[in-house]
Amino acid sequence: METDYSNNIKIIHEGTITDVPDFFASSCHCGLRKFREDFCILYTPEETCCSGMFTSNKFAAAPVIVSKEQLTKTRDIRAIVISSGIANACTGLPGIENAKHTIELASRYLNLNTENILVASTGRIGKQLPMDKVERGISICSKNLSRVGGHNAARAILTIDKNSKEIAIKYTGNQNDKINIKNNEITIGGMAKGSVMIEPDMATTLVFLAADVKISSVLLDEALRECVDNTFNCVSTDGCQSTNDMILMLTNGASGNEIAERDKNFNDFKNALFFVLKALSLKVIEDAEGATKIIEINVINAHNKLEARSLGKKIANSILFKTAMFGEDLNWGRIAAAIGSVEHQIDQNKVDIYLDDIQVMKNGQANDFDIEHGNKLMKNKNLKFVVDLKAGNDSAKIYTNDISYDYIKINAEYKKQK
Amino acid sequence: METDYSNNIKIIHEGTITDVPDFFASSCHCGLRKFREDFCILYTPEETCCSGMFTSNKFAAAPVIVSKEQLTKTRDIRAIVISSGIANACTGLPGIENAKHTIELASRYLNLNTENILVASTGRIGKQLPMDKVERGISICSKNLSRVGGHNAARAILTIDKNSKEIAIKYTGNQNDKINIKNNEITIGGMAKGSVMIEPDMATTLVFLAADVKISSVLLDEALRECVDNTFNCVSTDGCQSTNDMILMLTNGASGNEIAERDKNFNDFKNALFFVLKALSLKVIEDAEGATKIIEINVINAHNKLEARSLGKKIANSILFKTAMFGEDLNWGRIAAAIGSVEHQIDQNKVDIYLDDIQVMKNGQANDFDIEHGNKLMKNKNLKFVVDLKAGNDSAKIYTNDISYDYIKINAEYKKQK
Repeated sequence: METDYSNNIKIIHEGTITDVPDFFASSCHCGLRKFREDFCILYTPEETCCSGMFTSNKFAAAPVIVSKEQLTKTRDIRAIVISSGIANACTGLPGIENAKHTIELASRYLNLNTENILVASTGRIGKQLPMDKVERGISICSKNLSRVGGHNAARAILTIDKNSKEIAIKYTGNQNDKINIKNNEITIGGMAKGSVMIEPDMATTLVFLAADVKISSVLLDEALRECVDNTFNCVSTDGCQSTNDMILMLTNGASGNEIAERDKNFNDFKNALFFVLKALSLKVIEDAEGATKIIEINVINAHNKLEARSLGKKIANSILFKTAMFGEDLNWGRIAAAIGSVEHQIDQNKVDIYLDDIQVMKNGQANDFDIEHGNKLMKNKNLKFVVDLKAGNDSAKIYTNDISYDYIKINAEYKKQK
Repeated sequence: METDYSNNIKIIHEGTITDVPDFFASSCHCGLRKFREDFCILYTPEETCCSGMFTSNKFAAAPVIVSKEQLTKTRDIRAIVISSGIANACTGLPGIENAKHTIELASRYLNLNTENILVASTGRIGKQLPMDKVERGISICSKNLSRVGGHNAARAILTIDKNSKEIAIKYTGNQNDKINIKNNEITIGGMAKGSVMIEPDMATTLVFLAADVKISSVLLDEALRECVDNTFNCVSTDGCQSTNDMILMLTNGASGNEIAERDKNFNDFKNALFFVLKALSLKVIEDAEGATKIIEINVINAHNKLEARSLGKKIANSILFKTAMFGEDLNWGRIAAAIGSVEHQIDQNKVDIYLDDIQVMKNGQANDFDIEHGNKLMKNKNLKFVVDLKAGNDSAKIYTNDISYDYIKINAEYKKQK
């Protein structure tokens, strides 16, 4: 799904989620963590259509369970309450009650019906939310909602991320007789959080998106699923799946543009949404804990998409591959070993592997290449591998990072950093 | 399969594979590596029954492909030729030819039929075997076969392992009217190699076993499969699967003891073989690159064995869990997240997690425990976790290690160490 979207997409300079008309955000320090802001609310006064994707983890956190349930009541979501520092995962019934109580408090302070509110959390597993602090957060944030609150909100949802991850774009909606286009311009904004536990088998990490189109839940679900499958579900830092991941998208129709059917306007919307999600997912990879390399693995000519993706993930999640990348060792044998460990039918005598412009493996065997040149390429920050299976016509690009001493340090000392 | 085997099993002090009657070994430095011995032959003049388990990796190395094929011709294997330093993997048809040529050379020097010989290799992927050096190795080793060659052979098969891994035991065969028992004593010896790429989905690493019983191929296959499934297939250091792994067992009947049916003698044999394989698999874990912790994960009360094992593996292979262990952080949330990421149906509200004598999670929630005591336990080298699913009656024990700075160092700098 890599269309030429550049024609009509403009990236807003230092854009943020509140660049999307009629979206408001606020953040504060309510005390879930020691120093940094740890609480925020995203809000729109308009009726919305919301679509959500959630972790498939069996230890799904309370906010995941509760928000999923909320979306079965209505898709008209006006506010998302996000807390950072405590995951509200592995917290049993009290955790569920706290998530529901958070919604009730937000309903009171924001003057909304409870069914129009979702919750999300990230942080350490196993702790209950201190509800007095949560109420303080809601009380402060509900009073400070602002059309320029995006940047601070994007910082407040972080845990051990180094950088906030946000983007906003505008694109030109295409005139179409059937569609009511007011100003011919659509805005999509988003913010994400994540630097570990990022695995492709789910809607990963925390991502919040806003757009000012009007769109049905069926079409929004379809667009979000398709775009996430090709972006966040193709990104892996450590193969570990989290209990709290969710991607939520709110569309409030403020632009007056409506996407009513699967036409060119829908495709333009999907292209723009893909652009936003791809940018956010790459920001996550770039911020991966202790990473020194950004690695693209392009699996081509697979029997099918699933095969291409699972092969790419196997390589991306191989610790031996990741450590070789950190050591700038063009050890393509570890790529071959990772490919070979999938369940799919692979003919080893057909497989080619490339690093940028050099072919390191040809028909399953070592290829004669300029080793000096290979070693030089390995010193680059961005590495592009192509694995050609010569089996079919499908392909998938997976993005990952290396594993360094700092990854170990950051994750071994997670407790001390809190 | 944890029977009380202690009654009749005696560990031979500094035992090795050539403690098994009529088994010979020799080793040498033929030049596949710079300094250390890199070549060895295991040999018995007697007729044998051989059983083998091989990697399921689609990039199976040439020696795996050729040895598997050899075993379809006859189970009477008299010699195994093992080279270290070059894996002969990803070497295409020339690699296959070299493996076959190794067998032909060994056949000539050892005066055996080619079908009675197997080959195994370990080392760097993608290089062809220099056949002049291989011939030198065969020439030297065939002249020096010795009944005390086991220890040196066990060293020659290593790559970046720190220590050699060997064991030999004797146990008392049970008198049984139907069975011809000569001296009532059976010896089993083994040697193993492996410190990375150790994953449970296969017969992992290189393991060579010898016993002096007479046994049919059907019963030997059954015993080996069962024992490997509960030992080497329950061990994981990094979740990476290798192209070269194999486990080969030769039984030469030199003791005069015959195991003819699934009776008490067969069970005694399986218990003894389990003991040997368990000891070797733990030696592999203890030698895992850069490991500072030996971790047992006992998943109990699962719906079935498969579920128990795949859950245990998910935890064992979680980088976040491994780094937390290295950091001595009792971050049981990472265990829960790993459990939750399996495809099996898990009811999070039933799951309990223990570290030694303390319960850290109860019914899916944080349990109130003495944190000081927990932190003290985490300082131990050996950590025992129990995950109780309260769903069924099956269980599995998985063994793994932590991931330290040294793992990264060793694997990032693999090339430099060669």
